[in-house]
Amino acid sequence: MSPEKKENCGLFGIYGDADAVQKTHFGLYSLQHRGQESAGIASSNGRFIQCYTGMGTVARVFRKDSGLLEKLSNPMAIGHVRYSTTGSTKSANSQPFLSEYSRGQVAIAHNGNLINASVLRDEYEAYGHIFKSTSDTEIIIHLLAKPSHAMREDPIAHTLQHLQGAYCLLFLFPDRIEAARDPHGIRPLSIGQTASGAYVVASETCAFDTIGAKFIRDVEPGEIVRLDERGLHSRFFSTPGEVTPAHCIFEHIYFAKQNSDVFGENVHTFRKCLGRQIAREHPVKADVVIPVPDSGTSAAIGYAEESGIPFDMGFVRSHYIGRTFISPTQELRDLQVKLKLATVKEIVAGKRVVVVDDSIVRGTTTRGKIRSLRQAGAKQIHMRVSCPPIRHPCFYGVDFPTKEELLANNRDMEQIRDFLDVDSVGYCSLEGLLSCASLPADHYCTACWTGQYKIPINTVVNKFIMERYQMTMFEGWIEENV
Amino acid sequence: MSPEKKENCGLFGIYGDADAVQKTHFGLYSLQHRGQESAGIASSNGRFIQCYTGMGTVARVFRKDSGLLEKLSNPMAIGHVRYSTTGSTKSANSQPFLSEYSRGQVAIAHNGNLINASVLRDEYEAYGHIFKSTSDTEIIIHLLAKPSHAMREDPIAHTLQHLQGAYCLLFLFPDRIEAARDPHGIRPLSIGQTASGAYVVASETCAFDTIGAKFIRDVEPGEIVRLDERGLHSRFFSTPGEVTPAHCIFEHIYFAKQNSDVFGENVHTFRKCLGRQIAREHPVKADVVIPVPDSGTSAAIGYAEESGIPFDMGFVRSHYIGRTFISPTQELRDLQVKLKLATVKEIVAGKRVVVVDDSIVRGTTTRGKIRSLRQAGAKQIHMRVSCPPIRHPCFYGVDFPTKEELLANNRDMEQIRDFLDVDSVGYCSLEGLLSCASLPADHYCTACWTGQYKIPINTVVNKFIMERYQMTMFEGWIEENV
Amino acid sequence: MSPEKKENCGLFGIYGDADAVQKTHFGLYSLQHRGQESAGIASSNGRFIQCYTGMGTVARVFRKDSGLLEKLSNPMAIGHVRYSTTGSTKSANSQPFLSEYSRGQVAIAHNGNLINASVLRDEYEAYGHIFKSTSDTEIIIHLLAKPSHAMREDPIAHTLQHLQGAYCLLFLFPDRIEAARDPHGIRPLSIGQTASGAYVVASETCAFDTIGAKFIRDVEPGEIVRLDERGLHSRFFSTPGEVTPAHCIFEHIYFAKQNSDVFGENVHTFRKCLGRQIAREHPVKADVVIPVPDSGTSAAIGYAEESGIPFDMGFVRSHYIGRTFISPTQELRDLQVKLKLATVKEIVAGKRVVVVDDSIVRGTTTRGKIRSLRQAGAKQIHMRVSCPPIRHPCFYGVDFPTKEELLANNRDMEQIRDFLDVDSVGYCSLEGLLSCASLPADHYCTACWTGQYKIPINTVVNKFIMERYQMTMFEGWIEENV
Amino acid sequence: MSPEKKENCGLFGIYGDADAVQKTHFGLYSLQHRGQESAGIASSNGRFIQCYTGMGTVARVFRKDSGLLEKLSNPMAIGHVRYSTTGSTKSANSQPFLSEYSRGQVAIAHNGNLINASVLRDEYEAYGHIFKSTSDTEIIIHLLAKPSHAMREDPIAHTLQHLQGAYCLLFLFPDRIEAARDPHGIRPLSIGQTASGAYVVASETCAFDTIGAKFIRDVEPGEIVRLDERGLHSRFFSTPGEVTPAHCIFEHIYFAKQNSDVFGENVHTFRKCLGRQIAREHPVKADVVIPVPDSGTSAAIGYAEESGIPFDMGFVRSHYIGRTFISPTQELRDLQVKLKLATVKEIVAGKRVVVVDDSIVRGTTTRGKIRSLRQAGAKQIHMRVSCPPIRHPCFYGVDFPTKEELLANNRDMEQIRDFLDVDSVGYCSLEGLLSCASLPADHYCTACWTGQYKIPINTVVNKFIMERYQMTMFEGWIEENV
Repeated sequence: MSPEKKENCGLFGIYGDADAVQKTHFGLYSLQHRGQESAGIASSNGRFIQCYTGMGTVARVFRKDSGLLEKLSNPMAIGHVRYSTTGSTKSANSQPFLSEYSRGQVAIAHNGNLINASVLRDEYEAYGHIFKSTSDTEIIIHLLAKPSHAMREDPIAHTLQHLQGAYCLLFLFPDRIEAARDPHGIRPLSIGQTASGAYVVASETCAFDTIGAKFIRDVEPGEIVRLDERGLHSRFFSTPGEVTPAHCIFEHIYFAKQNSDVFGENVHTFRKCLGRQIAREHPVKADVVIPVPDSGTSAAIGYAEESGIPFDMGFVRSHYIGRTFISPTQELRDLQVKLKLATVKEIVAGKRVVVVDDSIVRGTTTRGKIRSLRQAGAKQIHMRVSCPPIRHPCFYGVDFPTKEELLANNRDMEQIRDFLDVDSVGYCSLEGLLSCASLPADHYCTACWTGQYKIPINTVVNKFIMERYQMTMFEGWIEENV
Repeated sequence: MSPEKKENCGLFGIYGDADAVQKTHFGLYSLQHRGQESAGIASSNGRFIQCYTGMGTVARVFRKDSGLLEKLSNPMAIGHVRYSTTGSTKSANSQPFLSEYSRGQVAIAHNGNLINASVLRDEYEAYGHIFKSTSDTEIIIHLLAKPSHAMREDPIAHTLQHLQGAYCLLFLFPDRIEAARDPHGIRPLSIGQTASGAYVVASETCAFDTIGAKFIRDVEPGEIVRLDERGLHSRFFSTPGEVTPAHCIFEHIYFAKQNSDVFGENVHTFRKCLGRQIAREHPVKADVVIPVPDSGTSAAIGYAEESGIPFDMGFVRSHYIGRTFISPTQELRDLQVKLKLATVKEIVAGKRVVVVDDSIVRGTTTRGKIRSLRQAGAKQIHMRVSCPPIRHPCFYGVDFPTKEELLANNRDMEQIRDFLDVDSVGYCSLEGLLSCASLPADHYCTACWTGQYKIPINTVVNKFIMERYQMTMFEGWIEENV
Repeated sequence: MSPEKKENCGLFGIYGDADAVQKTHFGLYSLQHRGQESAGIASSNGRFIQCYTGMGTVARVFRKDSGLLEKLSNPMAIGHVRYSTTGSTKSANSQPFLSEYSRGQVAIAHNGNLINASVLRDEYEAYGHIFKSTSDTEIIIHLLAKPSHAMREDPIAHTLQHLQGAYCLLFLFPDRIEAARDPHGIRPLSIGQTASGAYVVASETCAFDTIGAKFIRDVEPGEIVRLDERGLHSRFFSTPGEVTPAHCIFEHIYFAKQNSDVFGENVHTFRKCLGRQIAREHPVKADVVIPVPDSGTSAAIGYAEESGIPFDMGFVRSHYIGRTFISPTQELRDLQVKLKLATVKEIVAGKRVVVVDDSIVRGTTTRGKIRSLRQAGAKQIHMRVSCPPIRHPCFYGVDFPTKEELLANNRDMEQIRDFLDVDSVGYCSLEGLLSCASLPADHYCTACWTGQYKIPINTVVNKFIMERYQMTMFEGWIEENV
Repeated sequence: MSPEKKENCGLFGIYGDADAVQKTHFGLYSLQHRGQESAGIASSNGRFIQCYTGMGTVARVFRKDSGLLEKLSNPMAIGHVRYSTTGSTKSANSQPFLSEYSRGQVAIAHNGNLINASVLRDEYEAYGHIFKSTSDTEIIIHLLAKPSHAMREDPIAHTLQHLQGAYCLLFLFPDRIEAARDPHGIRPLSIGQTASGAYVVASETCAFDTIGAKFIRDVEPGEIVRLDERGLHSRFFSTPGEVTPAHCIFEHIYFAKQNSDVFGENVHTFRKCLGRQIAREHPVKADVVIPVPDSGTSAAIGYAEESGIPFDMGFVRSHYIGRTFISPTQELRDLQVKLKLATVKEIVAGKRVVVVDDSIVRGTTTRGKIRSLRQAGAKQIHMRVSCPPIRHPCFYGVDFPTKEELLANNRDMEQIRDFLDVDSVGYCSLEGLLSCASLPADHYCTACWTGQYKIPINTVVNKFIMERYQMTMFEGWIEENV
């Protein structure tokens, strides 16, 4: 998948561990692929919450010499890594959000996108509320603080019932963590446990491996899991089974790490299955199968196995540029492709090459990579993509460009082939894609291919709507690409 | 005055100047003595507001190489330098505060202390409002945003009528600046004009000199001054004359700069008058009169002139440590006295020395200075203080310690003399102090000496009450003493 | 290869390009895998040289907002990335070294290790010379500056004749670049040319791809190549053919990037050949072949192809920790393994797994990885290593630990198998290794396996000898892991 | 004295104190007025030396959070603050200089200016020596390392006999400190002792007060003082009495702090005597005497006392801009005057004002101050200067501009009065100046007024000569004005 596609966020929380803050730090490292724009950790000593957030990667925000992690030694903590889907790239938008309201302090970390955030914001501003950020997440604290919500038996449940869209949420109160997932279960959120019995929640199970915890189960769609001194307690704010799940299948295709299990199955296995599937759907005579690393690697291995064509690593990715270069601005995009992905001439020169990538969005960076292969002497280039053509925007947290910018919008296969300048192009069919999934086909959101949104988009909502809140809040942060 | 006494804040605003941001920057430099904890500038291009704040001095926040000032080139701006009176020393408390509410954006800068802030905060939290800082200033935005206020003909006037305590306020809206001063006129706020006609407001007139503007008049107690494209417009939210002013005479004694005019008269002249007054009230045979620089210098000159005893600079102040070392923590206090104030032995050795300081709070640092003089060989030391003994706390923005910590609390003159280890001690009488003032005696607040508070303190209020809001928000700022 | 093995350095130089500095910057990015400890660029405007060096990665030293690259806009430049082999990790050791001597300025960048550096340093100190660093490179400037050398017709050639050991050198004089390679050609150095005709030199050809230059040929062992306004001029300071080459075959096995050509052949192709070779030498029945990424990937693909066992990516490497964590200290080594390399359970659970790595040094990190595989449920683990057991130290720039610390020192295969806790272990034979090489077997240095050093080690020399120069020079650099 | 005049450097050293590094840190704070361009501390644990230097003020280089001072806990240390007289403002020139030569390590700190530095540098480059900086100090290490010097019984004494010009030097060897002063005693260097018996050396005695040490005596011209485990040992490298001293009287007039004793007498007392002297030489009828703070304050007090005209502080200096703004570039000079020195109108309006400054160099900033007074309403302005007109350059460390730029060059008193736009101008006569000095008149250097240089200037030497060494070495330092 091209670097132009932005990630969503990563969540991590742990209750009941003397090294909660340090383990949250490690957990965030393992979730760093979900967002490098900002990072933050909020922790509580049981009485009050301390929060530190900053712009950039986990390594940058929590620098070895900053002493921050030592200062934050509390038995419970939540952490967040962020890539903006709504909200400018401002430090005011970094999470966790720490606030105080009538019931005391709360810190919130959010993965997903609320489609009714601007409607709610208008409503609450009309009530006299003030806002300090441009993030959709801030509205959640306002809902929670509303007196008619706060006096309910379960204010969080009541609050969540007002939210529309995709959300996994971690709430840190001075005495507990509450973890919730939207009724459609769009984004993943899993529960684990350390050897000493502390409970952990994370966007992906790879974070459990990092700190030596075991996967227990997912937070269910519509469930709130409370972690406190009495252990883990579950409740539902949405009747289980009433809402058909709408898991974002892009988590499997692109977002999640190969070694994570999401929605009940391993990401690598899923991707490899996709590779086999496109090998069957789009066979071709070729000399070598190469992936666009790293997101295309698993599928390429699958393609190679199914087709019998040798697998090789025709592209070499630089580890020193990283996704940190993916600034929301266009400026360094060309430089990036060039520096990030080198070509191994010996693998492709004079060969018929099958290139496997996870998806294509705008197509411009893919075209750049194809050009590199041509320059390296590839005789034929056959593009294989492990999902169907993306033709519709996502309102649930995937930061696709506008419909007009999507490569597959108003282009047929021949035009796409021309644009990319390849000898053939083959996308995985929707049926093929779903055949690799273990859950029923209707348990996934496929809107970006089909346009069928499981949560109705009533209002004219897009990812930029929050931007009318033209608050440009520099808060001491000077961008430093490291 | 001893370094243990904290300052309040400084405000600067300018409308209608192409270099508004740069001039605000200069203005803040000249007001730096009013607060070094944080600095910030908010500016508007007529449509939306940009705000940058940071911890530390103006020089530090707006570093030459940060490029911030070039980015912020708008025709109107407000700025703030802060020393905390309420609210922890956290970056979340730095000002101007930028928020959005139902009517759009607003940035607020505040000098003073609201005595009903915690009551109002409780009330608004009960309405469901959330708070992001521990500063008393944040409540003002909530009041302004309250629907029943926002729909008024003059929401600002209506908002101000709810505030109790000391406040000078600058509001920056996308299209205008509004400057207001509390009905008692406790803190100073003046209006100036540049040669090209742009209006300026500032806590002290010295800021006008810095940018080449002329003083016009003070913002009156209970007045709101609006600066917009139609020029300057005045209105009152409190009937003029109904409330007797309660100007903080400590502005004359300590806070303001010698070259400023506050409450209608020059600070240096006032202080020199005080020096003459204590020379008359507490004459002594001595060889030399020396000030505790810089706040005692003017009075010492006055004392020397009246008494005929030669003036000299027996203390030398270091310019490289600065007030930045005055962290609210105790830790470097001893180091500070030692490094900040050196003694010129030749001036004091074998001499009978009159030492003039503006005031004494705890007395511990004064005692340290006296000890330095003894070590330098002074034969006799006569302490003279240009205001009466401080015996009561201030609720309007001067950060005195608790009553118990005040030197003059429960100590008679002999005990004070013993504590300081001086040969004699003489404070200016209240009558003597007021005789130097040009306004009627009842136009000043003298509560710290008399305990007679002009604004009733009904609730158990102290400067630390906001601290129960135990939000420790580190926002990316690692303290660097420079 | 385990992270405990340190890299050597990377060189880049370009003459005659308006964007020389910027292209050097790009070139260093592509050579970053050769050293992340420090980076630097020296450039000349034809009259004098400017030099900037700093600690950390290229990205860190030349931060986007530092403006350094814009300032350094000269038509010729050389750059360096460093990993210390001798010399403490101090900023005084970062390169290029800029000095002035009787003939003016010179900046030097060095890749390799001089085995007679300490002898020469003693000699020159006895002449009264002073040294500012602990690097072996500094002696070169002293040799060059020696009057009896400086007055020679070719002072550089004369200087080089005094050096023993491994070296590729770039000299930047105000008007030219001189590039030299030791008579044994131990480290690689290649010449390229841009489309517009500018000459480029680099440690690896991958740097040419990055800036769009074409490979021309290698700098020959014993050759000096001069780049100036008259183009490229070659001369030899050692009679060609007289010395048998001793190319460091570890460049093929570990150091160089897959897409580079070194010593006349492609790195990836070489490694894949090794994989095939060990598949023949050490066949085993297994379900999957997995590499230790990234250095074992090419060989694993070769092994899989030769054996017919499916290839898969059982380890996932984190891109956010990077080699920057490899501080020469032991402290974070455990953390590193854990965070850097995750296991994909689904690939290895219940499987017979062949693990391919490029080499094993101490064996401790390898053992850690094996343990991860066991924990992930691997049924059998068969370790395959694409070079012979390392039993001897390197004096030419590879930072192996002491002989005692080497896994294969005094351990037979069974003991190694036990240590690693694997079901079988198989190293590539020396003959097998050399069979993949295109040059005659005696053209390579194989000392780390055979103990046969091509350059005699007469004196008691080891990589730490320079450390007796106990100069601990902090020069304003506070380590920041980013 | 105008800010255009640059300072020289400050030295501090201490032997035999457990807190040697920390006390050096304090000592440098108190010497900060002698140079703010760079700061550094070298310390030894008895076996080897650690050194840390950086650009900017002491506060900036040794930031509270950098942990540098804790790391450097050794029983002996030397420190340096620098203002460049020769050598570009580059980090390569910051001191102490740490090097290694045949006898081991040595760190050197220097105050003064060597007039034969470039001659010696040429000579040593001809010997094959290399140079890493553009500072004149670097040559000293080369002299010390020269074999024929190093084998002498007293290499330091032998080295110093080759130096011409002004120098106070501290040498830190692993086991001792050696402090030396040139035979003319141009710059000051004093010896003190702490209560616990540790010996201290410093450029000014004010540093002793800061750390609680007592002044013992000056290091004599031509003397070397050795501080080691056996205590203090003195020797002479120049026959005492053979050379007539040439103390820089500008130390009294401008450089040193009021509370320091230099050349045997107190600075404040000296300056006050000058004020009395000019009152006698240039009496005038006036209403008020005001100093240009801080260097003119003592003389103004003396003028006021002698004349009977009241003293007052008509200028207020800002403590937040500081000398850090005095970058060697012209760019911020205007801003600086405006922000640094405010006028108190009430003191000067309608008055006949005597303004006392220590000296006038170019006259441009003085003219700016006069203009401020006129704008503030002064009726008459009488300029009084406490030294004679400066007409000749200094080769011994005072960074006057070129002869052509000096105000008094080719201008008579009337022209000077016109240039400054004052009603009268009066300089102190040379006789008057010397009458305030306690040493014989011929014991001072008066070359800047008389052109009679006590050390012959044989070669065409000027302060910029070293600048032909066009080494522009950026070493990781990005200027940050704080």
